[in-house]
Formats: sequence, C-alpha cells, structure tokens
Amino acid sequence: MDISKITTPTLLLDKTTCINNIKQMAEKAKINNVIFRPHFKTHQSLPIAKWFKKFGVKKIAVSSLQMADYFVHDNWKDITLAFPVNIREIDHLNELSEEIQLNITVENNESVKFLKENLKYPVGFFIKIDTGYNRTGIISDNLDLIDQILNETKNSELLNFAGFLTHAGHTYHAKSKKEINHIFNTSIEQLNVLKQRYKNTYPELILSYGDTPSCSLVGDFMGINEIRPGNFVFYDYMQFKLGSCDFDQIAVCMACPVVAIHKERNEIIIHGGAVHFSKEFIENSENKIFGQIVLLDKNGWHKADNNAYLTKLSQEHGTIKATQDFINTIKIGDLIGVIPVHSCLTANLMKGYLTTDNEWIDHFSGSK
Amino acid sequence: MDISKITTPTLLLDKTTCINNIKQMAEKAKINNVIFRPHFKTHQSLPIAKWFKKFGVKKIAVSSLQMADYFVHDNWKDITLAFPVNIREIDHLNELSEEIQLNITVENNESVKFLKENLKYPVGFFIKIDTGYNRTGIISDNLDLIDQILNETKNSELLNFAGFLTHAGHTYHAKSKKEINHIFNTSIEQLNVLKQRYKNTYPELILSYGDTPSCSLVGDFMGINEIRPGNFVFYDYMQFKLGSCDFDQIAVCMACPVVAIHKERNEIIIHGGAVHFSKEFIENSENKIFGQIVLLDKNGWHKADNNAYLTKLSQEHGTIKATQDFINTIKIGDLIGVIPVHSCLTANLMKGYLTTDNEWIDHFSGSK
Repeated sequence: MDISKITTPTLLLDKTTCINNIKQMAEKAKINNVIFRPHFKTHQSLPIAKWFKKFGVKKIAVSSLQMADYFVHDNWKDITLAFPVNIREIDHLNELSEEIQLNITVENNESVKFLKENLKYPVGFFIKIDTGYNRTGIISDNLDLIDQILNETKNSELLNFAGFLTHAGHTYHAKSKKEINHIFNTSIEQLNVLKQRYKNTYPELILSYGDTPSCSLVGDFMGINEIRPGNFVFYDYMQFKLGSCDFDQIAVCMACPVVAIHKERNEIIIHGGAVHFSKEFIENSENKIFGQIVLLDKNGWHKADNNAYLTKLSQEHGTIKATQDFINTIKIGDLIGVIPVHSCLTANLMKGYLTTDNEWIDHFSGSK
Repeated sequence: MDISKITTPTLLLDKTTCINNIKQMAEKAKINNVIFRPHFKTHQSLPIAKWFKKFGVKKIAVSSLQMADYFVHDNWKDITLAFPVNIREIDHLNELSEEIQLNITVENNESVKFLKENLKYPVGFFIKIDTGYNRTGIISDNLDLIDQILNETKNSELLNFAGFLTHAGHTYHAKSKKEINHIFNTSIEQLNVLKQRYKNTYPELILSYGDTPSCSLVGDFMGINEIRPGNFVFYDYMQFKLGSCDFDQIAVCMACPVVAIHKERNEIIIHGGAVHFSKEFIENSENKIFGQIVLLDKNGWHKADNNAYLTKLSQEHGTIKATQDFINTIKIGDLIGVIPVHSCLTANLMKGYLTTDNEWIDHFSGSK
C-alpha cells in the first residue's frame, strides 16, 4: 500500500481481511443451513456488495429505503428493510415494491392498518420481536398484538407474512462470550415458541436473527432460519473488545495526519475528529476511547504495543494519549492509523474507502 | 411551513432566526470595532454564506482546505484555516494560496520549517496560543517557541506573521456565565502580554479570538481585534444549556418520523439516529440527552413543556423518553421535532436544510 499520497483523513480497507470475514460468515451460514442475508448498512458500498455475490449472496438487509435504492441500481432484488416501517414513506415504498421483492418490518398495528389501505404492490412483512433489547419490537409474549396484526393481514393480498425477526442488540452490552451465548439462546427460545404457535397457519414462516456478536460467536444456529449480521464485514474496536473477532479480523482503519505533538501532556493531535469517526466511544478505567492506535505499513497496519488510544474528539481534531516512548517515534506530518470504535458510523461519515491495494471504492453518498 | 411532505429525517432551518443571529453578532463586532470573521464550519453552506455578505462579512474561517475550496467557488477570497496546518496538504495549500488571501495556523516549528521550504505563494500565519483549553496551541508563556517561530519566519517573503489566535474551547465546560467571562478575561490577558511583547516588531499583528460561548456572552471585546465564532449561526441545545443563547435563538431543528411507540416504557422511537444527529450528548441526572423534543407547527417549532428528550441513539433509531401525557398526543407516522445537542455535527451529517419558508438549501457535500 502506498500511503505516501494520503494527505487527509482516509478510511483504509483491507480487502483480503474483508473478503475473509464475508467468506467465514457465508460458510458458517451454509454449514448451519440458514439463509445468509447480510445487513449492508455497515459498508453501504456497491463494490463491497459485489464481493458478497461471489459467495452466493442474493438477499440483503438495509436500514432505509434510500439505501435500498442504492443497491437496487446494481441489481439487488431481494431486500429486507430491517427498520420499523415509516408510513410517511408510503410512496417510496410502493415504488420500490413494484420493482423488487421488498420485505418490511412491522411492530405495531397502526402501521399495518395504514399499509393495508395504501400499499399498491405485494410486500413480505416480518413482525419484529423484542427478545430483550427493548428498543423496538413486540415483546414475545404479547400474543394479543401479534394476533391482531395477523388477523388484520390474513386476507390481504399485498401483506404477506414472512415470519418473525429480531435484533438482539443487547449483546453489545454483554460482559462475556458466555453472556452473548445466553442472550442468543433465550432469544431463539422466544422465537421458537412463536414459531410453534403460528407454523400451522403459516408453514413458510421463518425466524430471522440479527447482530454481529451473536452471529460471530455462536457456533450452532439451530432453531433459526436466517441471519442478518452487518458489522462483521469490517468489525471494529468495539467488536474486538466484546470478543466477536480477533484484532486481525478488523478490516478498516483510519489514516490520519499528525498536526501537533504535545509531549508534556503525552498527546498527539491528528486531523481526524467527530466528522470522521463519529463520537461513539467505549470507556476503560482511565479514558474514553474513540479508537485504538496502530502503525501503518506497506501491507496495511499492525497493532502497536503501545497502549495508545484516541481519547478525545472535537469536530476536526482528534487527541491521542500515548506513552513518551511511542510519541518519540512520531513526527509532525506522519500518518497514524486508528482502528475506529464503530466502523458503521465511521464508514458512513467517510463516504469512501482506499483499499490496501490502492483502489478507491465508493460508499452510498446519502439520500439528499 | 408545509411539513406534510417531509417523509424522512430532515434538518429544518429557521431563516429569520438564523439571519437574526448573524445580524446580532455582526452588530456586536461593529460596536466593538473588531473584525468579524465567522467560522463557517457550522453551516458549511453557500446560501447561508450569502446571508453573511449582507452584513458586510468578507473574511471567514474554515476548518479544512476542502471546505475552503467550497467557499472559494462562490468568491470568498479571504479565508483563515483555523486548524493546525497539515503539512501533507502542501500542494493543495499552494493551489489555494495562489488564488486567495489564505491565512494558516501554526503551533510548532517543524511545520514552519517545512512551510518555509515548500510554500510557493504568500500566506498569512497565525500562531495558535493555548490559553487553557489544552487541545492545540503554544502555552502563552512558552516565549522560546514563539521566538523560534518568529526567527524562522522573519526573513521569509511567503510566511507573513498575522498575529496570535486562540480558541478558548474550555468555555464549553464552564458551569456558569461568570466562568465563561473569567475564561475570556484570562485568555485576553495572556494574548495581550504577547501583543505588548511583539507589537514593536510586528505593528500590524492582531489578536484573533474564537468560541461561540465567549462571543455570545461577553459584552466588551476590548483587547482583541478579531472574533471567529461559528456555532452562533444556529446555536443548539448545548449552547442553550451553557447560557450562550435563548431557546428561541436556536435556528435548526430535526424533523423525524415516529415509527414506534412504547408507552409501557415511556418511549417513542423515531427515524433519526447516529447517522443524523451524531452521538454527541450532554447528561442530566437521569439520562444522556441527544436532543430536546419540540413540537412542529406551520411557522417552525415551539418548545414543548414536556420534559421529553432524545435519550438513546443507534445507527438509524432514536429513542425519546417522555411523559405518558406527552406520548398520548403522538401517533405513529407523526413528525417530531428535535433540537440537536450539537448543530455543527448534525448539519455535517444531514448535508442540507429545509428552511421554514420551504426552500431546500445546500451544505458542502464533503471532500471525497
């Protein structure tokens, strides 16, 4: 990799590592006989989407209709909008469902009633189940509401019940791999109770399961029919700390120019701030951590044994805390590597990648 | 304002309020006889930049060379890059300084030596002084380093010393208006000691002062020559909490569709997440606060006396905590208004504004 031409904060992508992450998850899905429907909100990139095609991926998830449009342009034709349907977007939804196999997610009867009256073309719909994350979804024992929705839709020609979908995002707060396994197991249990109850009426219904920590750590997907991990394509420092991946499975790294060095405070200032990384952080005993510092080399980057972290961000500035020994190796004008805490948000801000093979690749530019 | 056509998260801009904010700051600068060099990193918008022209503004500050380019296209010709110079961008810097009056900011001698050898056209340079924020800049009593830089540049035809510049960002951590005034006064004191020392050699040197809290709250700019506030153009919830502005001076508000309501948890879920707001927050005794909830109306928005806040964000979802009484007034598919905590970051993510006069206006799309 020729980093000498990099002049501004740049998101580096290790293509080999990324393709390996895709391959591993695709193979795991195959062995477990589940549908692999990756969530493309992490990379939001047509070239990266193509890498998935090589592993037979045809079904994807996205988090907005605008993001769906972007992938439809490159002939992705089976898309689940894994976000509670926004009924204000009915016209856009009708345009898209005329063109492709669109699946939507519902979690209340108000939306369902609206859709029943306003849909023009068939859509599949998943009922979102809240298995404990408590963000969106119907609590799994709220059978009344589930029955209401299924009664509302049972004679609809346009609203086709596809199954139950969950995103067990509480794995992100788990303290151990054991706890992630436990969340997975209890979530699957809840979904399977529902499947048992409704499978006679809906023999085709599937159980769709999200979240990278579970999909990365659980070996056996028995009891589910579809997985929708997203972040695994890149992973990041947060996933590494959760134990979802090894450090060398992380496929993205920011390259940031050093603009100031303050040895007296053990600090290096980079061009790389909240408009590049986002302000997601995790905390250790001493600091907020917005990223782990690594050393860039001709093949990409390698872990620096230096206890150096990105610990503060303002709009354009990033502050790195590091040891004097590490700081002594850095000069004004150097490039420093930073593994982002949350790769989805960093990629969304950077809007493009430089691969370690020196190729620029696109990211969806946004809806406006 | 016709909000009925809004279908996705949208950044609303109250043009009257915004122009009023500009007018007030421009008049304050005029009364105080200081140069008004607004920082355009907050709005990053050519149409909004035009509103400044009406108040005689010709000099601006930006935080990257890419942002400078964007404004140069609309004939802004006197720009200070208020960020420590990034020597990797020397070619870009030379292109820009051929075309316009470019001022840069330096805070170490390594950059200055590099510039001395590699600049092709004249630039003005400010020495960044750290008056207590401890992010970048030279501590004001480090006269050795200041002397080194001025010695290095004294015979340079291309590096023209413009003066001392500070950004007293520690006002953002102040607990009271009194404390903000104190920070302002001690910063000005430090800068004036330097001015006294160097004014015989550099009779034209100016003192340039940043930060919206100081510029909003301090009445008398005696002792400085230039102000560079940025955020004041919109203000936001953080500035309101700091006391820099009244609530009705806030000129931007997100309009977000309601996609789920969970009364049992006192929660409303909107489409509006980290990719719209950024993850900047402030904390009250109970919650993280990513925004204050307001009610949208035909003229814009008004404060809802409801103790309702945006308290959680994931990539696309926002969670609002509110009272049952408030939640009872909200339906699936409604639009809810959210005053962002940090308008600069929200505007940077949204990349465009819908004015309360129903006009779409642009935001710089980014450098890639």
